[in-house]
Amino acid sequence: MDEKWKEACGVYGVYSNSENVTEMAYLGLYALQHRGQESAGIAVTDGAWMDVTRGMGLVNEVFRHQIPHMDGQKIAIGHVRYSTTGSSLLANTQPLMVNYAGGKIALAHNGNLTNAMEIRKNLEHTGTIFQTSIDSEVIVNLIARSRKETIEERIIESLNQVKGAYCLTIMTEEKLMAARDPHGFRPLVIGKTDGGSFVASSETCGLDVVGAKFVRDVLPGELVVIDDRGITSYPFATEEKKASCIFEHIYFARTDSVIDGQSVHAARFRMGEILAKESGFTGDIVISVPDSGNTAASGFAHASGIPYREGLVKNRYIGRTFIQPTQKSRDKQVKLKLNPVRSVIEGKSIILVDDSIVRGTTSGKIVNMLKNAGAREVKVCISSPPIGYPCFYGIDTSIRKELIASTKTVDEIREYINADALYFLSIEGLQASLSAVDPETMCYACFNSAYPVSHEDDKGAGKYVFEERKKP
Amino acid sequence: MDEKWKEACGVYGVYSNSENVTEMAYLGLYALQHRGQESAGIAVTDGAWMDVTRGMGLVNEVFRHQIPHMDGQKIAIGHVRYSTTGSSLLANTQPLMVNYAGGKIALAHNGNLTNAMEIRKNLEHTGTIFQTSIDSEVIVNLIARSRKETIEERIIESLNQVKGAYCLTIMTEEKLMAARDPHGFRPLVIGKTDGGSFVASSETCGLDVVGAKFVRDVLPGELVVIDDRGITSYPFATEEKKASCIFEHIYFARTDSVIDGQSVHAARFRMGEILAKESGFTGDIVISVPDSGNTAASGFAHASGIPYREGLVKNRYIGRTFIQPTQKSRDKQVKLKLNPVRSVIEGKSIILVDDSIVRGTTSGKIVNMLKNAGAREVKVCISSPPIGYPCFYGIDTSIRKELIASTKTVDEIREYINADALYFLSIEGLQASLSAVDPETMCYACFNSAYPVSHEDDKGAGKYVFEERKKP
Amino acid sequence: MDEKWKEACGVYGVYSNSENVTEMAYLGLYALQHRGQESAGIAVTDGAWMDVTRGMGLVNEVFRHQIPHMDGQKIAIGHVRYSTTGSSLLANTQPLMVNYAGGKIALAHNGNLTNAMEIRKNLEHTGTIFQTSIDSEVIVNLIARSRKETIEERIIESLNQVKGAYCLTIMTEEKLMAARDPHGFRPLVIGKTDGGSFVASSETCGLDVVGAKFVRDVLPGELVVIDDRGITSYPFATEEKKASCIFEHIYFARTDSVIDGQSVHAARFRMGEILAKESGFTGDIVISVPDSGNTAASGFAHASGIPYREGLVKNRYIGRTFIQPTQKSRDKQVKLKLNPVRSVIEGKSIILVDDSIVRGTTSGKIVNMLKNAGAREVKVCISSPPIGYPCFYGIDTSIRKELIASTKTVDEIREYINADALYFLSIEGLQASLSAVDPETMCYACFNSAYPVSHEDDKGAGKYVFEERKKP
Amino acid sequence: MDEKWKEACGVYGVYSNSENVTEMAYLGLYALQHRGQESAGIAVTDGAWMDVTRGMGLVNEVFRHQIPHMDGQKIAIGHVRYSTTGSSLLANTQPLMVNYAGGKIALAHNGNLTNAMEIRKNLEHTGTIFQTSIDSEVIVNLIARSRKETIEERIIESLNQVKGAYCLTIMTEEKLMAARDPHGFRPLVIGKTDGGSFVASSETCGLDVVGAKFVRDVLPGELVVIDDRGITSYPFATEEKKASCIFEHIYFARTDSVIDGQSVHAARFRMGEILAKESGFTGDIVISVPDSGNTAASGFAHASGIPYREGLVKNRYIGRTFIQPTQKSRDKQVKLKLNPVRSVIEGKSIILVDDSIVRGTTSGKIVNMLKNAGAREVKVCISSPPIGYPCFYGIDTSIRKELIASTKTVDEIREYINADALYFLSIEGLQASLSAVDPETMCYACFNSAYPVSHEDDKGAGKYVFEERKKP
Repeated sequence: MDEKWKEACGVYGVYSNSENVTEMAYLGLYALQHRGQESAGIAVTDGAWMDVTRGMGLVNEVFRHQIPHMDGQKIAIGHVRYSTTGSSLLANTQPLMVNYAGGKIALAHNGNLTNAMEIRKNLEHTGTIFQTSIDSEVIVNLIARSRKETIEERIIESLNQVKGAYCLTIMTEEKLMAARDPHGFRPLVIGKTDGGSFVASSETCGLDVVGAKFVRDVLPGELVVIDDRGITSYPFATEEKKASCIFEHIYFARTDSVIDGQSVHAARFRMGEILAKESGFTGDIVISVPDSGNTAASGFAHASGIPYREGLVKNRYIGRTFIQPTQKSRDKQVKLKLNPVRSVIEGKSIILVDDSIVRGTTSGKIVNMLKNAGAREVKVCISSPPIGYPCFYGIDTSIRKELIASTKTVDEIREYINADALYFLSIEGLQASLSAVDPETMCYACFNSAYPVSHEDDKGAGKYVFEERKKP
Repeated sequence: MDEKWKEACGVYGVYSNSENVTEMAYLGLYALQHRGQESAGIAVTDGAWMDVTRGMGLVNEVFRHQIPHMDGQKIAIGHVRYSTTGSSLLANTQPLMVNYAGGKIALAHNGNLTNAMEIRKNLEHTGTIFQTSIDSEVIVNLIARSRKETIEERIIESLNQVKGAYCLTIMTEEKLMAARDPHGFRPLVIGKTDGGSFVASSETCGLDVVGAKFVRDVLPGELVVIDDRGITSYPFATEEKKASCIFEHIYFARTDSVIDGQSVHAARFRMGEILAKESGFTGDIVISVPDSGNTAASGFAHASGIPYREGLVKNRYIGRTFIQPTQKSRDKQVKLKLNPVRSVIEGKSIILVDDSIVRGTTSGKIVNMLKNAGAREVKVCISSPPIGYPCFYGIDTSIRKELIASTKTVDEIREYINADALYFLSIEGLQASLSAVDPETMCYACFNSAYPVSHEDDKGAGKYVFEERKKP
Repeated sequence: MDEKWKEACGVYGVYSNSENVTEMAYLGLYALQHRGQESAGIAVTDGAWMDVTRGMGLVNEVFRHQIPHMDGQKIAIGHVRYSTTGSSLLANTQPLMVNYAGGKIALAHNGNLTNAMEIRKNLEHTGTIFQTSIDSEVIVNLIARSRKETIEERIIESLNQVKGAYCLTIMTEEKLMAARDPHGFRPLVIGKTDGGSFVASSETCGLDVVGAKFVRDVLPGELVVIDDRGITSYPFATEEKKASCIFEHIYFARTDSVIDGQSVHAARFRMGEILAKESGFTGDIVISVPDSGNTAASGFAHASGIPYREGLVKNRYIGRTFIQPTQKSRDKQVKLKLNPVRSVIEGKSIILVDDSIVRGTTSGKIVNMLKNAGAREVKVCISSPPIGYPCFYGIDTSIRKELIASTKTVDEIREYINADALYFLSIEGLQASLSAVDPETMCYACFNSAYPVSHEDDKGAGKYVFEERKKP
Repeated sequence: MDEKWKEACGVYGVYSNSENVTEMAYLGLYALQHRGQESAGIAVTDGAWMDVTRGMGLVNEVFRHQIPHMDGQKIAIGHVRYSTTGSSLLANTQPLMVNYAGGKIALAHNGNLTNAMEIRKNLEHTGTIFQTSIDSEVIVNLIARSRKETIEERIIESLNQVKGAYCLTIMTEEKLMAARDPHGFRPLVIGKTDGGSFVASSETCGLDVVGAKFVRDVLPGELVVIDDRGITSYPFATEEKKASCIFEHIYFARTDSVIDGQSVHAARFRMGEILAKESGFTGDIVISVPDSGNTAASGFAHASGIPYREGLVKNRYIGRTFIQPTQKSRDKQVKLKLNPVRSVIEGKSIILVDDSIVRGTTSGKIVNMLKNAGAREVKVCISSPPIGYPCFYGIDTSIRKELIASTKTVDEIREYINADALYFLSIEGLQASLSAVDPETMCYACFNSAYPVSHEDDKGAGKYVFEERKKP
């Protein structure tokens, strides 16, 4: 039922001489849980030994009985994952931890390399084996193959060979490292606690939860190294056009996070305001599809003066293990997740705000649910443009033909979802919602197909690309 | 950390000659999950055989692998539980299913009997054994002991002996029954699907999820019997002063439910509106403690004209199995659950709306969190009066001395939670929020100690009353 | 595949002022594990509080994470179960622990009451409910219903109402009690440790494992009470013909146990010796069906002078959770469990000794397995007479028509199992194998239908007798 | 308590165009379960796709819910493991399955490479990473690094680089391969079913269980390749002195297996016979430490004419998850596992036969247990010479100083275990027990330190060799 695009992953790292690093990683992964719910892992080192604990499930399921711990632990990295490359197997959980000539190294990756297959084939031809189907194994093999001396040089040499989207946290026995691809597709920030511990996190909400103050973003094309001498920066790439994912602001990131200086909440609220102006829609009340549409709906109400009401209640207890009822009652699923508040809805002209439409099936069910609850009319406002193209940079998107906007016009979509009116925010409106970052530094490829990095074709870049059957 | 009062339980029942009754019960319990997260169970009959499946945990944990099923099944009852009487043991899960002279009977109970101990002692003295510490076992023994002939007469005779709060769903091989105590403490409704199936549910949201239309409330002091002849009503008690729990409207029930004709959402929204007027508080923005304060905050904003903003983000992934971090980092817990949106908060005079204050600890942490995020001032508005007295009718309340309002004045509480101002809704204001029910039919005992039914003392009525140590 | 009759249960009890009673019960149940592998439980008291831990599975599965413990614990009882009455449900695990007018009581039962249904119906007619389908609930209700004052009198009054087979361990907050039915169907012994702790156990191997010395058997019709004053004996029944189960000596009990003074090993060895003489069989080697035929085979070899060889190897790792392979490979099952040692078998005339034949299927497979491994001929010797009748006293027997000896002659059985010769020990021979007990005090009903206690018919006394469907 | 040496692993493989290969592997691993109880795994291919299922625990625990299956499956390999190299981690379970330039390959390994660390360091220096600490990863990297064209050539080139003990089953999408090191340390056989399926198994008992007939042993230094053309043999090593593990015959292998033509049962029986003659011990009865001493005890009895009796009963239900009781009752552990049959023991002069003594602790407890049960005297006979040296070829041995025979004379050991006499079989006697293989082709290094292959020192070759801490 849930047809939203899925964020790939969240990465985390802690370096501390005084605080409990695995506990901080555990709390940090909780705060990043919205970025991946399929598996979680924490690797830890005390400066000599290194160990990793990984498992399928939510953070509280993987670490049900105990938080990993090691006497004298000083560095930890963590990862939450929703598979984009590689299927949902225990073998594909992260962080990946390996031995190489330089000792032990652990690595957590958020994003998707667009030339992973090519590099992998090259590595295989010179004798490398692959035990997983995750991009991280490609990167760590490049690091191990490098003839450079220092780990920093090895990593930089490796990153200069890969293309696409990556935010990495990397750990050796002595150092915590964080790297972001030259386009800066996915977010990555550095924070510091009052106790002097350094934290790297996909989002600022991962800093807040451990009481760390935001220090700065990791810059696109930068490798940040943290050890007892503090932070050292290694810019490793010639300047490329920055292309941060606009969808982080529309849907993926948590509302309370700040990405590259831009408050996610402020951007979403402003999207709603602009949506109100662009659409010119009028009605009795504004309601949101909870929770993803809440902030934009609030902005819409503020700009339009139309009151914002809680017209749909979301069941907070739908777990991942929900048993699919029989076919006959499958229609009841959306009812299980969302329920209208009849006293709010009845007889009203409703403006329904959501963040995006992917396949359109759920939107249609929600519109009908509101009409059955007595809505006089339902006008749908989407706080992003129509999604016409898949993403190749770390989002688990449907293939192109499953995107309703790739084959239908706005009016056909309106008819398909049974709405009385439908409006999508324009790209210009979306750009205008950004108050603290330059709109030109963002990637809008899923709306306009202006892909910043060349990629393999739709099928080839699918998440199971490394798991193909042997060709006859 | 979570100091809210806990609803006791939710009960459910389905009677159908055409639909899948256990699947409906499963979906219904999902919708009632907010009423109890400790255990869940479903009993089912095909008219000859009867079986029950129960377990500790959420509905999706108990029925992780399969929904109970029986060929030819026609009646099912279900239960979700947060223990009020009896500790959290597998043996205490419901529905209770037993054999007695009349065959098999299953029973699910929401509420708390105030004379359970007295009846139990009497039953024990005439040779009855008790295998659990739940009130339901008392009721079912009374039914078995009755000399009446029909099951309806047996139940009525039994209910006339018990006092306190109860909503029951009961099942024999032929009949589904639903009963509500003469005061109508807890809610209970009847619905019907298009396919002709009857549903009994603690709240109307349990009807919606299976597509059942609301038929009517079970009346206080009424036993409703459903079989192939349809619905039969047995009023079993002389008229008593009705005393429905006002806290269902303040906090317990789901916003989309309708109780005794009153929309919960409408009541909460109105509480916020009246709170705005009564408090006269001014400020830059209204924010809510999510999710319980959302509707009242919305009403407050509407009445005051002060904009409603999303100032606190709630982590949706805090599971029941969260490992307590070490003492040192316990302060991070509230940060794990709630995080302020700095761009919304900074420099603002904030009106913070919540539904109630029990011990005050969390409220204090939230106020400080907002101030640390840059709030200029924080004025707290509570959409209920100060809770000064425990409940004896099925809510898991703290004992009296733990209630902050039992020992502190409003100003002392304000100081304790570090708020710049604090206002509690008056009882009159609370009563005025009810548009569709007579305010005189509600129980306000936790605010004013006007207990409708005599009860044992604070200690005696505790949840472990049946589990005492042998006196030397 | 395993077609052996199953022992019902094992019971255990410990009373100590100095030793760890739950740990002793845990070790004792390990030693009694062969008497029941479906569920296990331990109840414990410290003299004021009482608690029980029960679960499905082997002792090491139920107590996988910890042995039950209670500060100041002084009495514990334990139970292992293979269901004879009541299906394999968590609700039917033992010990049963209940509250009654006199306080708390826990009870563990080995055996099968022949008038349980009748008593249960009577109790139901006076208002008793039943939550399980085990006999123990009948007994405990009788105790609760008794008007007698002391617990000893209550128990005795109750035991005088029930018929059939029972060995009980019972515990109140102050006393450990052990009772054995007037016929003494099943074994029960008392031991004492050097530390002064008292132990009650189904078999002496349960004493050995905790270092307790055998004190004496509980006598048929005796209630033994252990408290701080030591052991008190209450003979509660007028003398009845003793009828101890001969099958304990043939198969159920562990070889190292001593029952009513008779060494089980000595009896089995002697059965083999007599079998050798009675059968007069000659051959090259004697082999056993491991492990149940080992001792008798050894005796056969000793008496006949024919060498005893290890001709069949048993796989020690066949767990209860073995997945059934597909139909096609079901024949491989017996191969999975047993494998012939070709170098021992090849070209030999073999005398194969087993303890009993129930349905004959497995015996046939073993004979064929030996022939396929090169045996020249296979003569089968059984150390018990043909089983022609079911047991109604606590053994999970097949119904009569499934017993091969109820419908086939010895020669027909020989043909069915493809043996070259077949001999069953005579009842006289069986009796002669007992050196320390009077053969007249044993029950041979499964061989000669001389049932000591009247019983309901074959169907009525089945293990699901309390779980019948409602009659239309 | 259990101080026996542990066999490393068991390997299995099936190639079939008609039978269910994963089911056969599942049954085969059951039969090989005695060779490893820590983890199990099965890899399977249908000729194009390949998949692996692995887990910690016994075969029936790892495959608790289903046997792996793939439509069109035609090759499977399996592995059971007791860790010798690498700790007991999920990451270290086998078969290992990887992608390399030639496609997918899976490998299962029994044994221990003596130069694994050296090769690993070399591979790391040229850029290889290691994700596990098992030898198998070294082998598969060598295969991937090989510049040879065919998989057979790659494997042979790789095997020529490694030293030590290995039996391998290897699988590509098209071929099943089995290889045995040039010394033939561990056993490996090939069988064929009536249906034309080929089976490779560590022991012949793995053939029997699936109805496969023994075809031949894999020869030392031979790679056997099975595909649709049948069996092809690739001898890959120049002739080395054969050095099969004598301990397979003494203890590791199942009694019903045949290794290199020698019946294990026949060898053990003969060891007992020779032991009787060499020791010249007299007594009333011969008893065995079950189960490992049974066959030799039987041989001893046969040769000496002293009757063989079942004097010790073994508890069949001691699982891996047994909870350690408190220190005080640790002495009860051996009682939990073994119990004497007093009626057999009492007043007797006993000859106790066991297969080996490692640390001597358990032997001492058993001798005392027999004396406490009334034995007049206990003479201990061991069917192998004193173990004075560790094994470096795939057995989980104690380090040298823990071996009682490395520091004590036979008479000191006798005193330590409190025996009245003690005799160890001579190496010459051991050699004489082999009727079908040349005694000169066996390895006796653990008795006489004549190691066939050079090895790193005692500490260096420990099982955690690949898991060392970083040197400062």
